[in-house]
Amino acid sequence: MSELLSVAEADQRIRARMPFFGSERLPLDAVMGRVLHQEVQAERDQPPFDRVMMDGIAIMLGDGATRAFRRDGAQLAGMSGRVLRDPGACIEVTTGAMLPDGCDGVIPIEHTRREGEQFVLLDSCVPAHRQFIHARGSDCRAGAALLAPGLRIRAPEMAVLAANGVAEVEVARRPSVAIVATGDELAEVDEPLAPGQIRRSNDRALATALAARGFDDVQLVRVPDELQATRRKLAELLASRQVLVVSGGVSVGQRDYVPEALRSLGVEEVLHRVAQRPGKPLWFGIGPQGQAVFALPGNPVSALVCAARYLLPALERAIGLAPPEPMRVALAEAAATHPALTCFVPVRLHHDAEGRAWARPLPCRTSGDFSALPQTHGVVELPPAGAAAAAGSAVVFHGW
Amino acid sequence: MSELLSVAEADQRIRARMPFFGSERLPLDAVMGRVLHQEVQAERDQPPFDRVMMDGIAIMLGDGATRAFRRDGAQLAGMSGRVLRDPGACIEVTTGAMLPDGCDGVIPIEHTRREGEQFVLLDSCVPAHRQFIHARGSDCRAGAALLAPGLRIRAPEMAVLAANGVAEVEVARRPSVAIVATGDELAEVDEPLAPGQIRRSNDRALATALAARGFDDVQLVRVPDELQATRRKLAELLASRQVLVVSGGVSVGQRDYVPEALRSLGVEEVLHRVAQRPGKPLWFGIGPQGQAVFALPGNPVSALVCAARYLLPALERAIGLAPPEPMRVALAEAAATHPALTCFVPVRLHHDAEGRAWARPLPCRTSGDFSALPQTHGVVELPPAGAAAAAGSAVVFHGW
Repeated sequence: MSELLSVAEADQRIRARMPFFGSERLPLDAVMGRVLHQEVQAERDQPPFDRVMMDGIAIMLGDGATRAFRRDGAQLAGMSGRVLRDPGACIEVTTGAMLPDGCDGVIPIEHTRREGEQFVLLDSCVPAHRQFIHARGSDCRAGAALLAPGLRIRAPEMAVLAANGVAEVEVARRPSVAIVATGDELAEVDEPLAPGQIRRSNDRALATALAARGFDDVQLVRVPDELQATRRKLAELLASRQVLVVSGGVSVGQRDYVPEALRSLGVEEVLHRVAQRPGKPLWFGIGPQGQAVFALPGNPVSALVCAARYLLPALERAIGLAPPEPMRVALAEAAATHPALTCFVPVRLHHDAEGRAWARPLPCRTSGDFSALPQTHGVVELPPAGAAAAAGSAVVFHGW
Repeated sequence: MSELLSVAEADQRIRARMPFFGSERLPLDAVMGRVLHQEVQAERDQPPFDRVMMDGIAIMLGDGATRAFRRDGAQLAGMSGRVLRDPGACIEVTTGAMLPDGCDGVIPIEHTRREGEQFVLLDSCVPAHRQFIHARGSDCRAGAALLAPGLRIRAPEMAVLAANGVAEVEVARRPSVAIVATGDELAEVDEPLAPGQIRRSNDRALATALAARGFDDVQLVRVPDELQATRRKLAELLASRQVLVVSGGVSVGQRDYVPEALRSLGVEEVLHRVAQRPGKPLWFGIGPQGQAVFALPGNPVSALVCAARYLLPALERAIGLAPPEPMRVALAEAAATHPALTCFVPVRLHHDAEGRAWARPLPCRTSGDFSALPQTHGVVELPPAGAAAAAGSAVVFHGW
């Protein structure tokens, strides 16, 4: 039996060996939620012209003595080319319009009244030089760096891409994943249950966790608890998928064929067994063509903990997502620790009136007890310690 | 011009009038990320049988004097029916197996050594009554409430659904949405830009925000700044979509046809203009068939703020998602407020070593300035106040 690795060492080994899955160039409409793999610079000055900020009239302010302006046409949003030459005249404008040449102020329509062909300023209106003009280049200059590789494309990034003419975007290619469920005791969700059987659920839960992070090219596969069948199926998957996630079959029991089958297929064992609870049997290896193989324990809580702590962050790093800073939360009550093992404890988060995030532990009685997990947001990581972690102490949180 | 509503009043009016979009029954594989619309009870006791927690041997413990056990077959995971009758014998078992009848303890394989047909306990092994047995029903009893309507189906919820035989799931139907971009100044992302033009970006950004919350039945539509064309297109969309999100055209300018066009189509105005910055022109109404119509200001920051504060939470409530508690964060530095308007300020979050979430304001110079938004996580809401909000004060946060 191999030595137990620390959580940090296990994480570091996985991180060091994860493959890179490359980039692809996609139309802008296909990149929502994807990870950016290119830099984006400002296409033009932003705004690209002196931009009118209110519906109203554009005028030549001069000494401010003029209070009535003859309407000399309009330059609405999207138009260009009008010039104001007469300080006694004005050009009607709308929000987003280009400021007509010759103008140096905008009067909102509600600060004027109409008298025939004239706009007259209300008595309360004291116009200031260049008011309601969003000056060309005041947000940023053409060529300014706007987006860097590693960002996830959320609404703000999408706005910047679209506004700067990035019609095709270089984004992270997402790996093809297979989730392999082992265990002869597994029944399908719609089958009658024989004595001794439980329903297959880990693979669907893992697929849901992957989908929530944008990994949706996922295939679900069953294998029986038998070495040759396991080996045959894993060989097929190593040839067709970039990431294998095996659920179960990684302990040291007589039917835990997975490590043996993987080794016989040339998958290099990078780690097996981590000093943690739950999830001790975790196995990770790299296949002959660089395939990443995560073999997670079969217990549902263990499998989800290993996914939240290792699998999801490793995949996100591998596709180039800028790593988020660790999220620290305060323990709402004391939590038991172990002298030699890192404990992962499911918690429910609550942000108090001072902005502090509190984590209330909802410990599972066993690593098979997942009925309380829907009440939780993720797990906190309690390093090995001689005494319980005190209420109020800050610990690192990992979301489901 | 209508009175300005408070943010709370605007939110309340939208909430009170949002339609319900119904439920649908989908296969389990199609409900990842969806909102649950049914209760789920435990199909059986959990675990459904006394479940073996380690690979090893199952024995009759008795007075604990027996230290060697003759192997009398095996009951592996998924098997059933074996009975132990002889206290001097044992049955080989694997993790997840049904405990054979007659047994009251499991000895891990690594606490034994094999001597021919016998398993002998190691000297260090002091077995306890019912050790390594996960007792039937100890996690929950058959019929126990496990999931309630209103949960989003993440990995833990999926595990519970699958494990309890829910092959078809009642989930929220998601509304069909159209996002309508107004503005003659808008150019497409791959078109050359004429003077006075800017690129269409709000609708794509809003679609990205919607998709991130699971609203992906979204159609993008352009209309010109002209009353009849706007009216015609909106009529068509009211007949085919359940939610309309209009970007731009809601101020009081000569080309802000949207409220007029909507009114003429029988869309009841529920609110127009909110005491907030940015986003003052916000308009919301309900169509003759209960269609929800959000008309957002055309400025990119205003549009995203109105989406984060009103549109996304309203849609999530309407599909029955249990409302999350407001997330409070601490201001990392003082932020300007307005005596009469609620200010929404883009912020970057940071969780400190004590678990407190700090929000660093990155104010936009204008409501058109969105180039800094990719550095932010969302906005904080600063209610009207006579003085600046102090550093360290707690404020409500809304994510993009």
